[in-house]
Amino acid sequence: MIGKKIREIGEFGLIEEFKKLVNAGQRTLVGIGDDAAVIENPREGMLTLLTTDMLVEGTHFELGKATPYQIGWKALGCSLSDIAAMGGLHTAAVVSIGAPGELEVDIIRELYRGIHELAERFACGIVGGDTVRSSSGLVISVAVLGEVEKEKLTLRSGARPGDEVWVTGVLGGSLQGKHLTFTPRVAEARFLVENFPVKAMMDLSDGLGSDLFRMAESSNVGFHIEEERVPIDLAAVGEVDRETALRRALYDGEDFELLVVLPPSCREDEVAEKFSSRFDCGLAMIGTVMERDRGIMMMTGGSETALREGGFSHFGPA
Amino acid sequence: MIGKKIREIGEFGLIEEFKKLVNAGQRTLVGIGDDAAVIENPREGMLTLLTTDMLVEGTHFELGKATPYQIGWKALGCSLSDIAAMGGLHTAAVVSIGAPGELEVDIIRELYRGIHELAERFACGIVGGDTVRSSSGLVISVAVLGEVEKEKLTLRSGARPGDEVWVTGVLGGSLQGKHLTFTPRVAEARFLVENFPVKAMMDLSDGLGSDLFRMAESSNVGFHIEEERVPIDLAAVGEVDRETALRRALYDGEDFELLVVLPPSCREDEVAEKFSSRFDCGLAMIGTVMERDRGIMMMTGGSETALREGGFSHFGPA
Repeated sequence: MIGKKIREIGEFGLIEEFKKLVNAGQRTLVGIGDDAAVIENPREGMLTLLTTDMLVEGTHFELGKATPYQIGWKALGCSLSDIAAMGGLHTAAVVSIGAPGELEVDIIRELYRGIHELAERFACGIVGGDTVRSSSGLVISVAVLGEVEKEKLTLRSGARPGDEVWVTGVLGGSLQGKHLTFTPRVAEARFLVENFPVKAMMDLSDGLGSDLFRMAESSNVGFHIEEERVPIDLAAVGEVDRETALRRALYDGEDFELLVVLPPSCREDEVAEKFSSRFDCGLAMIGTVMERDRGIMMMTGGSETALREGGFSHFGPA
Repeated sequence: MIGKKIREIGEFGLIEEFKKLVNAGQRTLVGIGDDAAVIENPREGMLTLLTTDMLVEGTHFELGKATPYQIGWKALGCSLSDIAAMGGLHTAAVVSIGAPGELEVDIIRELYRGIHELAERFACGIVGGDTVRSSSGLVISVAVLGEVEKEKLTLRSGARPGDEVWVTGVLGGSLQGKHLTFTPRVAEARFLVENFPVKAMMDLSDGLGSDLFRMAESSNVGFHIEEERVPIDLAAVGEVDRETALRRALYDGEDFELLVVLPPSCREDEVAEKFSSRFDCGLAMIGTVMERDRGIMMMTGGSETALREGGFSHFGPA
């Protein structure tokens, strides 16, 4: 019998293999399965965060369609977003680049410029890296170190029935180009954990229609989402009918907005107002956390239907 | 005019571009250019270390010639070696893998097993990672976090004229396969910084004939190396004449042994004895640190000649 191919088990199958074989060690409080790993920190009351993301030409970007500047920006942005989604703040990053020998140096310069400008904007030190030859495509891997106060750490696993689900910004349109220009919600995430009793948080990297399932699994809950409350990026999704627009908002992935869970004691108008007085992007309540056996439901008009699991998957079947 | 290609400026040219464009930030004490970055640590008297390495199919390994287990082992080993070369100890690692969808899952399982066994051996927690599709080859990127006591930090820049140069183990033979099975000198490096006043240290990743030039640059010194003292791995380099054996020891690269600089107050016999009573690999004195204008010289028989700069380069011309 010929062994299974990676595309048959998909990205989540591969992550399961990874979890089985790897030992996080005793000093690790949260290992694989959240936005970033959580490790003991020598400073009283603090935790260390560590995350990594890899972008591969042909999978995450095409050099003809994305500028090298955008690719650099995105490479660092994904990891800053992961640290933010834990309620934390980055301290330093390392960047590894695999580049074909035939690539023009100017392309790499532009890529570094994209990394550099995002790093400057968010005061993230780029402290080291590796540069190697890649006989195939361009590959960028970023690892970001961060930290968070113990009481501000926000995991995917903290949602409880009765809590309310929120998202920052507007969703959809990443496949139309937005995935290259997003701003990681670093300041927004810190504002949230500093001002509200955030119960759970994650960034929307695979799309709401996939990431809700990830959070449901981690928190062992269900969700009731109200379709008309899902904020859609109408400018980015293009002039399409409502159904297509919604599909793009749910399944395009790479919004890099925050999925936030707050207790019901947080009043909707107060939260939204406090947040929008400070930031350009909005914060919208989109539904409620339910018991696990209720599943993940979408309320459209007057009827409730099960949300189809989908979203961006690196290996085809998820 | 068509822009320059990466292969024309080589790996070190690319690193120079990287240095120019990137801002290490205020909390960074040592940025790009040593084995690992050194960052402020909240604990009194301690420093944080962060390093990353990327291995690309076709550049660092061929799936036909290396087992996936060996590739995993090597991927983590390079970064553990970098942390060790700073005098420090790793605390956690993250691993990103880019894999073609057509690759068999068993290959990835074996790769993870290689990472896992090395991680277990050196008690390094694998705390997270990323798994993505690579339309071309297999890519592995590892980032390792570590720490070191301030007074034990060993940089490349600490060598001074009159100091003595040492190497652990035996060199050469990496191209004959040794680069896939090396053991990072984690315990050895810690033993050295705990027992001797180490002035400078780095790991031999590009080969003695390249890495001596890197240390000379960082420390602003020259070196006088005695050819007959350079320990050659006779079993690994194969049955070849002395000249070929020496060339392999100097230029194959990826020995992952330690290049160590000790003050002349350390007595050769005492150091060697103390070290070899504890470890299987040896520690050999190979020469002396000179003033910068003396260059990097090799003493062969009775005559001194300038050492040719060479060694493994990812982009052809170095």
